[in-house]
Amino acid sequence: MAAAVDQRQSQIVLGLDPDPAQLWPQATEKVAGSGAGEQAANAVIDHCCRLIDAAAPACVAVKPQLACFERLAAPGRAALGAVVAHAKSAGLVVIADGKRGDIDVSAAAYCQSLVGQTATEFGEVDGLGADAITVNPYMGVDTLRVMIDGARKNAAGVFVLVRTSNPGAADFEDLELAGGGTLWERVAQSVGQLGDGSELSDVGAVVGATAPQHVARMRELMPRTVFLLPGIGAQGGKVEELAAAFAPGRAGGLITASRSIVFAYEKNGGSPADAARKQAEALREESWALGAGG
Amino acid sequence: MAAAVDQRQSQIVLGLDPDPAQLWPQATEKVAGSGAGEQAANAVIDHCCRLIDAAAPACVAVKPQLACFERLAAPGRAALGAVVAHAKSAGLVVIADGKRGDIDVSAAAYCQSLVGQTATEFGEVDGLGADAITVNPYMGVDTLRVMIDGARKNAAGVFVLVRTSNPGAADFEDLELAGGGTLWERVAQSVGQLGDGSELSDVGAVVGATAPQHVARMRELMPRTVFLLPGIGAQGGKVEELAAAFAPGRAGGLITASRSIVFAYEKNGGSPADAARKQAEALREESWALGAGG
Repeated sequence: MAAAVDQRQSQIVLGLDPDPAQLWPQATEKVAGSGAGEQAANAVIDHCCRLIDAAAPACVAVKPQLACFERLAAPGRAALGAVVAHAKSAGLVVIADGKRGDIDVSAAAYCQSLVGQTATEFGEVDGLGADAITVNPYMGVDTLRVMIDGARKNAAGVFVLVRTSNPGAADFEDLELAGGGTLWERVAQSVGQLGDGSELSDVGAVVGATAPQHVARMRELMPRTVFLLPGIGAQGGKVEELAAAFAPGRAGGLITASRSIVFAYEKNGGSPADAARKQAEALREESWALGAGG
Repeated sequence: MAAAVDQRQSQIVLGLDPDPAQLWPQATEKVAGSGAGEQAANAVIDHCCRLIDAAAPACVAVKPQLACFERLAAPGRAALGAVVAHAKSAGLVVIADGKRGDIDVSAAAYCQSLVGQTATEFGEVDGLGADAITVNPYMGVDTLRVMIDGARKNAAGVFVLVRTSNPGAADFEDLELAGGGTLWERVAQSVGQLGDGSELSDVGAVVGATAPQHVARMRELMPRTVFLLPGIGAQGGKVEELAAAFAPGRAGGLITASRSIVFAYEKNGGSPADAARKQAEALREESWALGAGG
């Protein structure tokens, strides 16, 4: 990840959350496919590829939100595969955002699905080919270990939800523990310990950019962890409040943005692609400058 | 759910976790499709439909593990749809086991995907049509509310992970809170409050059968909640230890079993279907008798 950030001079992760009722106009003009599902899926591919082409120069990675593709059923999964392939051909790292978590055999199946392969009686079936996945820690460290091992075997990484960007994060994540600290701090400790010992760990953390007061404490608990920072823009987070994230280097903080880039044309005018390119580049410059000060 | 349990005289939920390298032999004999993915997906359909036909008379529901289908990519999603349709035509309730959890817009997209429909510029796209889904509470009550509302709009239910059946459940779920009680007890309180007020709530709880010492406390905290009880059989849970689950009636405890039914033929001999039928029926009788004593 550090190499990719360095090479592309960017810490920006482009969120791909396509809403098939709100695609860029060009993407819905000439669409092949039989039935609404296939047509919508093809329009989603076109939309996401245009968005990637526009924003890629300013980005280091894409983060497809799996739910947005899954709602188009089998054609949606095919679209996800096509979009991931396009992002990879554009030189971007792919973070599959599904926030999965399950017991051992099921966690392993998710790894097969997203970063690995599946043995069948008819030969191997390739998974999505993502470079990293997001996972949910609720069920415990054993479930995280299966995910991390499955990812490692495929030279992929994992981002564990630690302290998320939604208002309800306070309900359980922020609960004070009898032994001291909060639940998210305990999860953060585990995440810090689960890394592979390299300068920047292969086990990252999802850390909401809407709670910047926590970022310094997170950095204490997870000194070598890459932070995936959602919540910039539409959810109210601000880049300039996240300096602590970049303490171990620029790749220590990856800033995800989606709606602010996709819908920049509605706010700033111009074509969707031009507006997205400018918005992504502005965000890249802002965070790159900040990283240098860390 | 209560009506279904009553009508079918069963509290057994058949877990569908197909491993495409370990399907029933008949399912892999004559398989159509081009490429390993389609062939494996078609074999999975055949396997699951045979399993449903064998065990359905003793069951009230099926619980497809989404990871197992997702690892076969787009053909896997098509297979999931076919298996769900077959289960419904056999009169079974369908519980989509994906343990999803995400912020508002993404949670809503998961609901569209699993229990609802998705509006697109090309018309509506149907979701999976499940009757219930499993969800992960880590991110907070706001994320659960979106899932519950999305399910309710489609006359579907939700099962929230409370205390799971894996060994690592102790890591975070069992943490003692400064305000008293454990994390899972706090989650259980929220689950109890999120129900719709009916005699048996539309918000259920996933409660591992491997920790029977907790079931009575769970029933205290969630008096009208349906418990989905995984962990019987392969994971070591025992039906006779779960009496407290059935306090509000037989539908208060749904017992999931998968490997013990699917692979009964390896242990007990006979054809896979006959062995599965007998094993499911034995489990049905055992839990039905127990429910009567509650």
